[in-house]
Amino acid sequence: MSSRIAWVGLSMIFVSACSLRSQKGVPVTALAQEIIALERSALDRWIRLDPHGYLDLSAPDITYFDPFQDKRVGMEALKALAESIKLTKSLFTEPRYEMIDPKIQDYGDVALLTYNLTNYGKISGGPETVLARWNASQMYARVGGTWKIVHTHWSFTKPELKPPTP
Amino acid sequence: MSSRIAWVGLSMIFVSACSLRSQKGVPVTALAQEIIALERSALDRWIRLDPHGYLDLSAPDITYFDPFQDKRVGMEALKALAESIKLTKSLFTEPRYEMIDPKIQDYGDVALLTYNLTNYGKISGGPETVLARWNASQMYARVGGTWKIVHTHWSFTKPELKPPTP
Repeated sequence: MSSRIAWVGLSMIFVSACSLRSQKGVPVTALAQEIIALERSALDRWIRLDPHGYLDLSAPDITYFDPFQDKRVGMEALKALAESIKLTKSLFTEPRYEMIDPKIQDYGDVALLTYNLTNYGKISGGPETVLARWNASQMYARVGGTWKIVHTHWSFTKPELKPPTP
Repeated sequence: MSSRIAWVGLSMIFVSACSLRSQKGVPVTALAQEIIALERSALDRWIRLDPHGYLDLSAPDITYFDPFQDKRVGMEALKALAESIKLTKSLFTEPRYEMIDPKIQDYGDVALLTYNLTNYGKISGGPETVLARWNASQMYARVGGTWKIVHTHWSFTKPELKPPTP
């Protein structure tokens, strides 16, 4: 009986270890799984122009950068942005994204998630195209026992800049 | 005698409190002073194309984004970048920078510094001009008792993008 319990226990450890490995065979910690799942749940809504996944996940004192803001902004600006996004008509269909090489840096009650992101979609019913490529930094902290985003930095990967006017 | 000691003590507290206020009257913590001083010491060298201030301040497992990289990179890539910067001839003179509205988010052994940065310089002896405007996220962590940068994200503030080719 005890050997059966040991076998069941070993199987559970084995199954658990398998679920903690990514497709490329790189070990993924339970923390990484948890944070990446939170981020994906927000991204899944974001690509359909629903900002509330990210808003709900953000701490009240979040600091935020993206390429469309004049400077660092906070929660009030994010709420205003969310309202304006609700009025936006999407210019593309069949949105999807690729989260490339997500990495977690673990500091106990703080975890930093970084990744590259590619957004895809179809414009005017044409073929699928790359809409944007991003660098993403998401700093999570445990706030009242729950992981919340306390800092976001979105930027374009290798943006092609307009030449300066002489 | 004891009143003199009390007076000296109070004076020291007053001087200390004054030194912990920024010019705009916003209270600045000792932690913020320390982190911002570290960052400025690296920036002072960086604007003269000396990358070693930042390299020395960075942890071996740093993750890094800037607008010139294809993806997130680490320390090996930063060392290679530093070597290439040493071979660069500066295109401008009299470099200076403005660190705008630096903010520290304090999580114990982790501190996030965010700010906007404007770089100035003179090109071909002309008048001073804005070279670039940046969004900056610098995540510091105490590594062996010393503050080190564990994540950097530099991006252009509101970059003007080249229109996509049809």
